[in-house]
Amino acid sequence: MIRVVILGSGNVAQHLYTGFLDQKHAKVIQCYNRKRLLFHPAQEENSITDDIGSLKEADIYILAVSDNAITPLSAQLPFKNKLVVHTSGSVPMKALCNLNKRGVFYPLQTFSRDKNIDFDSVPICIEAEEEKDVHLLKDLATPLSSKIYEISSDQRNILHVSAVFVNNFTNHLFSIGNDICKEHNIPFEILYPLIQETAQKVIQMNPDQAQTGPAIRKDTKTIERHLNILSDPLQKEIYQTLTKAIQSKYGKKL
Amino acid sequence: MIRVVILGSGNVAQHLYTGFLDQKHAKVIQCYNRKRLLFHPAQEENSITDDIGSLKEADIYILAVSDNAITPLSAQLPFKNKLVVHTSGSVPMKALCNLNKRGVFYPLQTFSRDKNIDFDSVPICIEAEEEKDVHLLKDLATPLSSKIYEISSDQRNILHVSAVFVNNFTNHLFSIGNDICKEHNIPFEILYPLIQETAQKVIQMNPDQAQTGPAIRKDTKTIERHLNILSDPLQKEIYQTLTKAIQSKYGKKL
Repeated sequence: MIRVVILGSGNVAQHLYTGFLDQKHAKVIQCYNRKRLLFHPAQEENSITDDIGSLKEADIYILAVSDNAITPLSAQLPFKNKLVVHTSGSVPMKALCNLNKRGVFYPLQTFSRDKNIDFDSVPICIEAEEEKDVHLLKDLATPLSSKIYEISSDQRNILHVSAVFVNNFTNHLFSIGNDICKEHNIPFEILYPLIQETAQKVIQMNPDQAQTGPAIRKDTKTIERHLNILSDPLQKEIYQTLTKAIQSKYGKKL
Repeated sequence: MIRVVILGSGNVAQHLYTGFLDQKHAKVIQCYNRKRLLFHPAQEENSITDDIGSLKEADIYILAVSDNAITPLSAQLPFKNKLVVHTSGSVPMKALCNLNKRGVFYPLQTFSRDKNIDFDSVPICIEAEEEKDVHLLKDLATPLSSKIYEISSDQRNILHVSAVFVNNFTNHLFSIGNDICKEHNIPFEILYPLIQETAQKVIQMNPDQAQTGPAIRKDTKTIERHLNILSDPLQKEIYQTLTKAIQSKYGKKL
């Protein structure tokens, strides 16, 4: 059984804890966070500590903390030569203090405190300095998820930029759609099926083939009418920038 | 039984034809398109015409044609006082020739030729000049979809702008994610679960609450590193514009 200690109090720490709860191959023997936060009703009070000096002996220490906290927290750990991993999409593995064996255990998903995640479909990107630690991380990830990828720090950086586009920026487009509907008293839920289908399509066809709309059709009349409807200058700017990008990308092929 | 004639050869025409195929309350008695295109193996050859003068007597004529073709085609119809509807998100009902009774039957979904659609979850936005035609359109839509909305031309315009953001522009963000991954030999499929979860979340929580990422965290170090990774100037511009919009929207609340 792989003994795990999770450090951190955020959404990733909470979801990882819950994800490991039903597993037999690994056990979270301790959680460290300064607030002594409980992640789950089943968690025992004495398995939580806010004292970095009291960390238990484990096989893997998972630092599920904010990007800026990874380096300082890894330097505070009161032991050497243990496997210490972080869970960040954008921080290089070598940002971890080199007194321990370093690695990354990055679940590529968006986590919210109040929304359960089926871990089986969460891609886990792993990296480690030593081959045997790669194996250990794979052993840890395998029963949790069916999608495990060995990804270097450089590749992870690329994935993270892409994730900003397909998740953070996409969500902001949803937020704009919601604002426009709210402004005109139209229920945003009318657009839910369209949003689901847009996301489903990407699995079945290349997004270049799925591109539709006034921009790719060069339908200048509709584009103009849309720009007149938008009252927010930033919404207008986003509309214009994305329309320009779509026309530039597909212009030659039309 | 409601007798329907569908005019047009595009994806909406095809999916509407297929959608009505299993229905008992309505029958597509004829299709008109200049290519005499068959939409389905079950379709009879003699139910297709390319001669506008040979249109059969029906209760509803659905013009599922491109936005620019709606007005001229509606003016060519060789009859009067029949219910004629278009299927466009952005064209006003009154763009239809006023010699017939006018209406709109707008299925708010993205249709591709090779991807089947479960019509039951497709919101259908209807509009008509006369109350009894609104009822007829509702009767036509009811067995097809469980989401029917009576929407004015002005409201439909607003919905259409919102749809451009949540569908067309979102798909372009997916396309950028795909391009970035391809450029660096990383399988884009790693991002599929994130894309699905992003779309799922919008149903369960307000997109403002779901917003995460370096922009809202004002993580300037990560933003800078991401901008350095992007080689395409338009990708950079989209990254900057959306980052600025997110920071402007949530800046005051942070």
